Amino acid sequence: MATSNFKISIHMVLSLDGFIAKKNNSVDWFETVDHYENGVEITEEDKMAFLKTIDCYVMGARTYEHALKLADTYGWAYGNTPTIVLTHKEMPVYSRHVEFFSGTLHELIEEKLKPHFGNIWVVGGASLAKAFISSKQANEIRVSILPVILGDGIRFIENMAQEQALHLKNVVPYKSGMVELCYEVKQ
Amino acid sequence: MATSNFKISIHMVLSLDGFIAKKNNSVDWFETVDHYENGVEITEEDKMAFLKTIDCYVMGARTYEHALKLADTYGWAYGNTPTIVLTHKEMPVYSRHVEFFSGTLHELIEEKLKPHFGNIWVVGGASLAKAFISSKQANEIRVSILPVILGDGIRFIENMAQEQALHLKNVVPYKSGMVELCYEVKQ
Repeated sequence: MATSNFKISIHMVLSLDGFIAKKNNSVDWFETVDHYENGVEITEEDKMAFLKTIDCYVMGARTYEHALKLADTYGWAYGNTPTIVLTHKEMPVYSRHVEFFSGTLHELIEEKLKPHFGNIWVVGGASLAKAFISSKQANEIRVSILPVILGDGIRFIENMAQEQALHLKNVVPYKSGMVELCYEVKQ
Repeated sequence: MATSNFKISIHMVLSLDGFIAKKNNSVDWFETVDHYENGVEITEEDKMAFLKTIDCYVMGARTYEHALKLADTYGWAYGNTPTIVLTHKEMPVYSRHVEFFSGTLHELIEEKLKPHFGNIWVVGGASLAKAFISSKQANEIRVSILPVILGDGIRFIENMAQEQALHLKNVVPYKSGMVELCYEVKQ
């Protein structure tokens, strides 16, 4: 894979009040019941075709633990796409598509990502997303806002303590009431 | 004014990380420099015509103090539209369009709002917005998301501690890179 198309995207699903997860890690709130008439409808094929454009997922240890738990009920969310978990811990290996890495963010990017992948998705958690953004390593932020106020939970970008200008690239409202906002991180 | 069209809307301008204000109250971040090609352009006349549909503004004491300070530089943001400030303090009266109220939220709505106004906008702060939403008195939430991560500040709906389902009503991206999301608060 050429690295000329190298791009790191942060992708998070948020409640309107900016939470990415409930404190009890329940994901029942993902199943929002809403209907937005003017929204875009996506078929399972559209979704599959889109997911195929992703070359690699990156996640933190807690997000991985959570994905393992969810896999029992919903199946593994990341298919056969290479998935790199940043962790210093010994963790169960879900499949041969999962790899662990315990180096720095810089080492991850230079050694693991740039030589092998183009379109990279960082899927959480909040502190990993923050590390990518604050070190100016993220090129893009995609947030999918669900039509719900959670009232409590784990925040998306908890106090980054520095400002970051963004460029709005795309807005897509879906029939489900979810709105996807895509931003370029200004360098 | 008939109360058959009685509606209370919460309106807040947010950064992508969910802040409504910087800790130092500076509003320089409102002046984002972005350009979204597919966005809607609004003229000063469009804006004026829209603002005329608002019958009354409601705000908390700190939001009023802040509006007073901003008025020195930018002028009074709420025109000649009646503005009710919820406060127990003695505060300077900006003009004859500003009125103070020290009762409960319920008294405010029954005594001051319902008999006189239709389209009511609650413009902050965070705790007043939260009180309206958690007591199920808000009909609508409009958030205008600016293309910036602030990293620190005062949050929109700080830990409401209860979930609230929403219905997406409208999505408008603007040329400035601001996205307005409008939700109905489900009863």
